[in-house]
Amino acid sequence: MNCFHSIVIDKKIEKPLYQQLAEGLCHMIEQGILPANSKLPPIRRMASKLHINTVTVVTAYKYLEQKKVVYSLVGSGTYVSPLPIEQIEKPLVLEQTKKFEKQSSIENAINFVDTSMPQHLFPVEEFKEAFDTVLSREKGRAFEYLDSMGYMPLRQILCQYLQEYGIYASAENIQIISGAQQGIDIISKALVNYGDTIFTEKPTFYGACGAFLSRGGNVITVSMEQDGINMSELENLLKVYHPKFLYIMAYFQTPTGISYSIEKKRKLLELAEKYHFYIIEDDNLYDFYYGAERIVPLKALDYKNKVIYIKSFSKILMPGLRMGFMLLPKKLLESVQSAKYTTDISTSGFLQKGVEYYLRKYGWQYHSSIMRKYGGEQYRMAVSAVKKHLEGKITFLLPEGGISLWLKLPPKVEAEKLCTMLVKEKVIVAPSSQYYMGQKEQESIRVCFCNVKQRDLEQGIKKIGSAIDKILENAP
Amino acid sequence: MNCFHSIVIDKKIEKPLYQQLAEGLCHMIEQGILPANSKLPPIRRMASKLHINTVTVVTAYKYLEQKKVVYSLVGSGTYVSPLPIEQIEKPLVLEQTKKFEKQSSIENAINFVDTSMPQHLFPVEEFKEAFDTVLSREKGRAFEYLDSMGYMPLRQILCQYLQEYGIYASAENIQIISGAQQGIDIISKALVNYGDTIFTEKPTFYGACGAFLSRGGNVITVSMEQDGINMSELENLLKVYHPKFLYIMAYFQTPTGISYSIEKKRKLLELAEKYHFYIIEDDNLYDFYYGAERIVPLKALDYKNKVIYIKSFSKILMPGLRMGFMLLPKKLLESVQSAKYTTDISTSGFLQKGVEYYLRKYGWQYHSSIMRKYGGEQYRMAVSAVKKHLEGKITFLLPEGGISLWLKLPPKVEAEKLCTMLVKEKVIVAPSSQYYMGQKEQESIRVCFCNVKQRDLEQGIKKIGSAIDKILENAP
Repeated sequence: MNCFHSIVIDKKIEKPLYQQLAEGLCHMIEQGILPANSKLPPIRRMASKLHINTVTVVTAYKYLEQKKVVYSLVGSGTYVSPLPIEQIEKPLVLEQTKKFEKQSSIENAINFVDTSMPQHLFPVEEFKEAFDTVLSREKGRAFEYLDSMGYMPLRQILCQYLQEYGIYASAENIQIISGAQQGIDIISKALVNYGDTIFTEKPTFYGACGAFLSRGGNVITVSMEQDGINMSELENLLKVYHPKFLYIMAYFQTPTGISYSIEKKRKLLELAEKYHFYIIEDDNLYDFYYGAERIVPLKALDYKNKVIYIKSFSKILMPGLRMGFMLLPKKLLESVQSAKYTTDISTSGFLQKGVEYYLRKYGWQYHSSIMRKYGGEQYRMAVSAVKKHLEGKITFLLPEGGISLWLKLPPKVEAEKLCTMLVKEKVIVAPSSQYYMGQKEQESIRVCFCNVKQRDLEQGIKKIGSAIDKILENAP
Repeated sequence: MNCFHSIVIDKKIEKPLYQQLAEGLCHMIEQGILPANSKLPPIRRMASKLHINTVTVVTAYKYLEQKKVVYSLVGSGTYVSPLPIEQIEKPLVLEQTKKFEKQSSIENAINFVDTSMPQHLFPVEEFKEAFDTVLSREKGRAFEYLDSMGYMPLRQILCQYLQEYGIYASAENIQIISGAQQGIDIISKALVNYGDTIFTEKPTFYGACGAFLSRGGNVITVSMEQDGINMSELENLLKVYHPKFLYIMAYFQTPTGISYSIEKKRKLLELAEKYHFYIIEDDNLYDFYYGAERIVPLKALDYKNKVIYIKSFSKILMPGLRMGFMLLPKKLLESVQSAKYTTDISTSGFLQKGVEYYLRKYGWQYHSSIMRKYGGEQYRMAVSAVKKHLEGKITFLLPEGGISLWLKLPPKVEAEKLCTMLVKEKVIVAPSSQYYMGQKEQESIRVCFCNVKQRDLEQGIKKIGSAIDKILENAP
């Protein structure tokens, strides 16, 4: 409570007192002194501390609420908003992208930001056969316009594969998309209007936020815990805001690698029903589990049709295909179809027919088991290298699968500074700021191990350790 | 002026007089009695006619202006808005699409709404070679993520072809897109925020409007004349509104087939500079000219970098490729790149590399001359059939190229009614309402002749004539 003494209220200057108080509070929020979802002092207490009228405090709180800097829970008090919208703006997304692109182009660097699988594993010969067959079979038809929802035989075969995930779907509810990012974009178009609220995990994938912000959406982030999103924080926010949807990754989350417990998955679906919002389950890594048991997708538990399931083929097949699909609640079919039409009319029919041939002939497991085996080897090497070279320097939660590790840095090490140092050593790592959209954060780095050569993996992680040491040596 | 007597002002009822007047005017606008851009009577005259106070008239006009039902030009007066925004809503676009899809699926129908070229003309063998070569040459690299802007060698070769159009471009300013519709969508994302104004031609392509409306844009339409948009109407509107851009097709416009005169093109560019807006030139038919002389694209005259040029490959190559490109003013590169990233990260690299191989080996002219020759034959057949069977029934402007004719119906024939009748005869034609976005219109039909078999062409047009006769016979 003492920290509020830093707010200077000067009764002699012209600026209204409530505004001086509001600005003081804003400053404290920006500085991170008042963290997201922390409670502001009760009105009387604040008034007496600062020797001002209670009306002044009420006015200041109301003003900040209008500005969405704080929110109030009836009968409980006033809390700091998870995200003052002014802080997250469009250019940020581009900036992040550019940083990535610039860094990724450094030659011969050890690249821990690349999220794609190595190309020598791609099923190129099989796809060559698939495209040849489609062109011989269909001729010009292969290049005709196709239904916006997608090629029906492809949608049908995808339903078969979804059964292996425990998801029982009808082909009518499947929308083919040009990659998961397009799915996120189309859902945003169908559901988000200017000023609508969207919830995401914190930290999260900046590309998704970019699509939400581009619609004029008000993005509010909810902290992650070891077993998924913070449920009490989420429910408190749901009492105030009415989000159109919550965007999550239920397993091997980007960037933390966290997977949701079954309890949290069930609770999420309950909340979605109670508070009338959808959940977007963004799945690009489901098949990359390295433990004995498979996880249950959120969609498999979705008896009330609250989950929009987005599946990317980028990891399971190849990123350059630019393809994936969505499984939609029936209610959303019309608006999604309309959004897809105005987005790009339809995904290339030629590519869809190629993928359909491939899946029908080779099956889903054929390639995904190769990818999982490779991913698992990389994972074990990365984990053992981290344990060997970063023990005592960083802390991390062992993920059950996926393509990356999320390493928490010691208090005196700033992630951005560390990453800049590492670039000079030709090691590229993503700092946590890229996933926090400009908010105050726990300083961490994301280490993607999926496209790093085995001989470079340990070497790269060792260099991360040396760089941390160097920063700590020079720390005051 | 007499028509305003229909407005009933009742001083005995509770409703404010200004509101009664405003509602009366709204009703007249909705009924089409007051057409878009017509001038409302001066305040004094209106007041004396209706025996009300001038203040009441001023208040009503102001109220309507706030609602964007009318606009005022300083020193000139108050005019009816081209488009009350309440009338054009999202579902319309889907509705139109669905109508199309449902009708197009009628078996064995003579299809005058299909805008694609017949598939037997597609260069399938050449593309088979292209994809094979790319896969043998690149292997897994063919399916890697690619730069959001597109594959540089493809962008470079496109610059060469643009020179044949009289456009001198740098590859840095070319953005590869997954079809023209995506180009429109991305530009909307980059430029249109909620409440921004966009100008389009009237009538126009509903898919474009769908993208603008989806961004919360306020779409204002400007009438077409025989040689392009109505310039005085445009300039009057520019004095009031500040559009982000004007969306046009400079040759063989959808749906009218109209091409802009060189004078209007020059004037457009002048206005764009004077009033600070961009022009989107949507080009999907440039190569389909059937006269001796080629037309000059607007972009070729664009010395001040006001034109965003969007080129579709759907007509010139194949619609199912889902590819095209944009040539952008340098100032827009960053925001477009960001919008493309959040839309779908990038267009399939595999497809881009295939198109690049094809263009480099076979050139642009190889296939486009085949298409133009075919289009020209269909055009001449369609025109002679229309002259033979619809003479005296309809009026039309002979376009200089393109894929369709725009036929104005006699006063007593409603386009929707005619189209419904024709469906029963297994002839599918698009009514003008699909291009007017719910506004009052000149009743017309669009007859696309590009994918109708020669033996059906004359037969179909004859049936249109019979249906018109039938309606006229039964008309009161």
